[in-house]
Amino acid sequence: MRLDETAKGVYVIAPTPFHDDGRIDEASTDRMTDFFLEAGCEGMTILGVMGEAPKLDQAESLEISRRIIRRAGDAKIIVGVSAPGFAAMRALARGSMDAGAAGVMIAPPSTLRTDDQIVTYYAQAVQAIGADIPFVLQDYPLLFQVQMTPGVIRRIVQDNPSCVMLKHEDWPGLEKISTLRGYTAEGSMRPISILCGNGGLFLEFEMERGADGAMTGYAFPDMLVDLVRLSAAGQRDAAHDLFDAHLPLIRYEQQFGIGLAVRKYVLARRGIIGSAAQRAPGGKLGARAVAEVEYLLARLGRTDARARLG
Amino acid sequence: MRLDETAKGVYVIAPTPFHDDGRIDEASTDRMTDFFLEAGCEGMTILGVMGEAPKLDQAESLEISRRIIRRAGDAKIIVGVSAPGFAAMRALARGSMDAGAAGVMIAPPSTLRTDDQIVTYYAQAVQAIGADIPFVLQDYPLLFQVQMTPGVIRRIVQDNPSCVMLKHEDWPGLEKISTLRGYTAEGSMRPISILCGNGGLFLEFEMERGADGAMTGYAFPDMLVDLVRLSAAGQRDAAHDLFDAHLPLIRYEQQFGIGLAVRKYVLARRGIIGSAAQRAPGGKLGARAVAEVEYLLARLGRTDARARLG
Amino acid sequence: MRLDETAKGVYVIAPTPFHDDGRIDEASTDRMTDFFLEAGCEGMTILGVMGEAPKLDQAESLEISRRIIRRAGDAKIIVGVSAPGFAAMRALARGSMDAGAAGVMIAPPSTLRTDDQIVTYYAQAVQAIGADIPFVLQDYPLLFQVQMTPGVIRRIVQDNPSCVMLKHEDWPGLEKISTLRGYTAEGSMRPISILCGNGGLFLEFEMERGADGAMTGYAFPDMLVDLVRLSAAGQRDAAHDLFDAHLPLIRYEQQFGIGLAVRKYVLARRGIIGSAAQRAPGGKLGARAVAEVEYLLARLGRTDARARLG
Amino acid sequence: MRLDETAKGVYVIAPTPFHDDGRIDEASTDRMTDFFLEAGCEGMTILGVMGEAPKLDQAESLEISRRIIRRAGDAKIIVGVSAPGFAAMRALARGSMDAGAAGVMIAPPSTLRTDDQIVTYYAQAVQAIGADIPFVLQDYPLLFQVQMTPGVIRRIVQDNPSCVMLKHEDWPGLEKISTLRGYTAEGSMRPISILCGNGGLFLEFEMERGADGAMTGYAFPDMLVDLVRLSAAGQRDAAHDLFDAHLPLIRYEQQFGIGLAVRKYVLARRGIIGSAAQRAPGGKLGARAVAEVEYLLARLGRTDARARLG
Repeated sequence: MRLDETAKGVYVIAPTPFHDDGRIDEASTDRMTDFFLEAGCEGMTILGVMGEAPKLDQAESLEISRRIIRRAGDAKIIVGVSAPGFAAMRALARGSMDAGAAGVMIAPPSTLRTDDQIVTYYAQAVQAIGADIPFVLQDYPLLFQVQMTPGVIRRIVQDNPSCVMLKHEDWPGLEKISTLRGYTAEGSMRPISILCGNGGLFLEFEMERGADGAMTGYAFPDMLVDLVRLSAAGQRDAAHDLFDAHLPLIRYEQQFGIGLAVRKYVLARRGIIGSAAQRAPGGKLGARAVAEVEYLLARLGRTDARARLG
Repeated sequence: MRLDETAKGVYVIAPTPFHDDGRIDEASTDRMTDFFLEAGCEGMTILGVMGEAPKLDQAESLEISRRIIRRAGDAKIIVGVSAPGFAAMRALARGSMDAGAAGVMIAPPSTLRTDDQIVTYYAQAVQAIGADIPFVLQDYPLLFQVQMTPGVIRRIVQDNPSCVMLKHEDWPGLEKISTLRGYTAEGSMRPISILCGNGGLFLEFEMERGADGAMTGYAFPDMLVDLVRLSAAGQRDAAHDLFDAHLPLIRYEQQFGIGLAVRKYVLARRGIIGSAAQRAPGGKLGARAVAEVEYLLARLGRTDARARLG
Repeated sequence: MRLDETAKGVYVIAPTPFHDDGRIDEASTDRMTDFFLEAGCEGMTILGVMGEAPKLDQAESLEISRRIIRRAGDAKIIVGVSAPGFAAMRALARGSMDAGAAGVMIAPPSTLRTDDQIVTYYAQAVQAIGADIPFVLQDYPLLFQVQMTPGVIRRIVQDNPSCVMLKHEDWPGLEKISTLRGYTAEGSMRPISILCGNGGLFLEFEMERGADGAMTGYAFPDMLVDLVRLSAAGQRDAAHDLFDAHLPLIRYEQQFGIGLAVRKYVLARRGIIGSAAQRAPGGKLGARAVAEVEYLLARLGRTDARARLG
Repeated sequence: MRLDETAKGVYVIAPTPFHDDGRIDEASTDRMTDFFLEAGCEGMTILGVMGEAPKLDQAESLEISRRIIRRAGDAKIIVGVSAPGFAAMRALARGSMDAGAAGVMIAPPSTLRTDDQIVTYYAQAVQAIGADIPFVLQDYPLLFQVQMTPGVIRRIVQDNPSCVMLKHEDWPGLEKISTLRGYTAEGSMRPISILCGNGGLFLEFEMERGADGAMTGYAFPDMLVDLVRLSAAGQRDAAHDLFDAHLPLIRYEQQFGIGLAVRKYVLARRGIIGSAAQRAPGGKLGARAVAEVEYLLARLGRTDARARLG
């Protein structure tokens, strides 16, 4: 049940469903979990930035983790454990694994600059959480302000056997995937799983460059599943046709500060969660934005029945 | 001939054409200028980041400015004059206006943080170049690391009558346009022209929020002209159909470091410039990237004849 | 017992004493607390960056807080509650106050840029922890990358009655103190306590500009107490003589990454704590650095008997 | 006359003297040059940030460079050539060397993050200016936001024979000097000159760690000359006594934004330049700050006659 370097497919980034009054919506949590897994997702990543983790207290975090892990059965759950210090990271990581998680995800703190600082940080993180816990290296320079070269990623992978996956969301990142796959082909880096985030904005080409799948929170993860399958099957034109139909909405989601609001709105419109509510502080959709999303859904509905929401 | 707040349409961000050996390609410069204006662009913005301005020496900068301004006839030419100090900014601005430019564009230095620092910087810039030169305020937080609230933009506009245009490329930015237009509607900010950059990634909705047009370097500025016209004419669905067809390529251009390489490649493939060459240092397209661009062009060509390049 | 705007004197930033094997050193914690208070400190600030808070787990944090608060008797203890999310901040703040803390300290997250973002953040923080908890606004641009103008500080103070103190560590900061005191003199900002950090590097002039005291972790807090008293008594030359004698060491402590190592080394040499050990990851003093500190102590010992450590 | 890796002593960072009305003060420029060299400085560095270079137009820059170089006779003049693009850097560097400069200084642009980006930038800079021009590598992370490890500096030195000097102003930086000197001792890096900046705040220990001298703009460069000589002669206590007497003022100068104002004020008070005027925009000393500087000078005058200014 542990995450390893053979992971493929879609690991959806899951939001945390709330009632309008801010309480955790447990029924929606179950329904969402069921939906994601029935849609073909191989796993879920929870308690990341998208999951509003900083707005949950420790007891709530543990409770929702356990609920999702239990509900998910054989599917793999990855828990975000990034924290300002290693003591909290260790507690989160050990607690998550005890609850049945498949692995954890670690983002770099924004203060890291030099290659050595980044490599050292991950060595210390592994020492803190224990080398027995599989972890995902999150590479998202636009958000974290930390730039990892392919060479630095290789050092981390080679130094730490428990690094089994890269959440790739560098931008631009196509050449990076090719370079990393080239390292493995030439034997200078052991194989790892590469799942792509960054909202899926380049996913169709990322798959062609050698990615294993997606790890992002786009509100149509069922489309991501189809896309990954089409791409893996070599049906290039069909994959691009599907992707291009969704691209206007994928792009619309890529707005810092309100991206989660768009996602929750669409998930609620699809009936997957009960409410688009976020705990404060959270970005909100104005009337104009709601109308724009509805227009995009209507246009998407012309070719994808899943977007016909009545 | 001076730029003013009534400016509308497309002001294309122009690259600087080079021969493969690094010399400025004057024939391509003329051909490109003709093409842009015949395509319906109202103006051009030159010597910005996209124009590889830092790779030109002072004599070359002046020469190419004069050449384009002369060739452009009645069309308005805006010259980027951002510089590390006000002495250089003043020299560039006065020299450009003497050569016949319609106005200048000023980006904020990346060290600015507080609201007051930003407002003060533009006051000093106007004092340096002279209050008689119309200028464009460039608002591109993702690149410059400077965040201007709508309130700060209003202060700059109200304090400086020579600020006639906003190059809007905040991301996300739709609500910002609505807020700024709301300021003018309520009478708290005088009207200015708002042209949108950021590669055009949200242009179809930006027009609907009240933008006056586009100022970006997408390699199909003729499409931007059509889109702006359709949107202005209220033909919403047609505007979105056109935009969506181009979005996969627009998105592909939005890759820091290689975006200009993609643009020059496509412009060269279209025969608008003679070579995709950049002066060093410049991002380069690998074979995989070239094949991806060609695939995108082929797909685009199914609905837009301008992309059928044989 | 609550912190309020009349606070004066020295609130020492306390390190967390560890045994060489990483366990919390409770005997040293008691001895250090006694020493600081007998030296004349009005209070202590614990669980800040200097206190290695991120290396403590939740149970340890709570335990050491309670221990120090109990030991400190009537002295005021301020607890650092900066956290990546408001849920954790609230839990820390409520828990600290329940344990008997006098107030809490909140640093801004490094992502804040615009004036409004900063003001909004503190409004949300107060909403999260409750308006009944007195808090210290920490203004340390060099470390946090957040720049607050005097006007922004005034907005925070006026909006939030529970903001009773500024930990002033802007650099340069002398004019800022004068401006803030001017606001209060002119009636546009209610009075707050201003205690100075930044290692004490400008403390002698900061007192003359109107500061109420010091909040820093210099390894001779007994000297800080003397300096604040001399300055308050108008004995300017004596205050500067004392300060200047310590400045070479104060300056030596002002080295990011190893500052805490210097402080713990000197505190251990003075017998105040049992060991200079830090939990990993921590900056370490090499042999050259130790020799330099010893040389500085020997020189200081010529005029200040407290530095004659045998 | 070319700068090389044997350079030692003090290369003072020179301000640009202006009249109160903003014109360049040529008489002061000559007097200042004479003073610096008679004080024992081996050279001068001009047109850096401290020299208000961005406020000079191209003709002024060239004129003042020529004036100082001519006046300086055999002393070595280093010219700052950092620029937003390589075209301008090349023009400045070639022009300066033609005018008789001994070498140039290059700071990294603030956008550089990874080790490879930094190394590549300097390779490109050398290609742009020519491998025949000796250059100084400026390492000032606090100001430029670029962090170079000792390993990166070694790569730059080994890759580029024309890199002959490091302007060391990392903070903290004592271990860095030791590490770099260790590289040379073990034979993994060729010898370079290391001169220390950062206002001189750690100069007494930097000399003991192996630095060759100072390159900073402290308003008593004659003191820096004495300090470097004492330290080189092994007169440790005397060197520290001298340094400690000046440290309160050295520290006071270390205030971003007004540091240059303090320096020009003191240089004017000493009669070295005619006016403390800066061209706009420039930090200004308020009445309180002037009084503080005067107080520091009076205290310094008790032990150093050079500070008795009547």
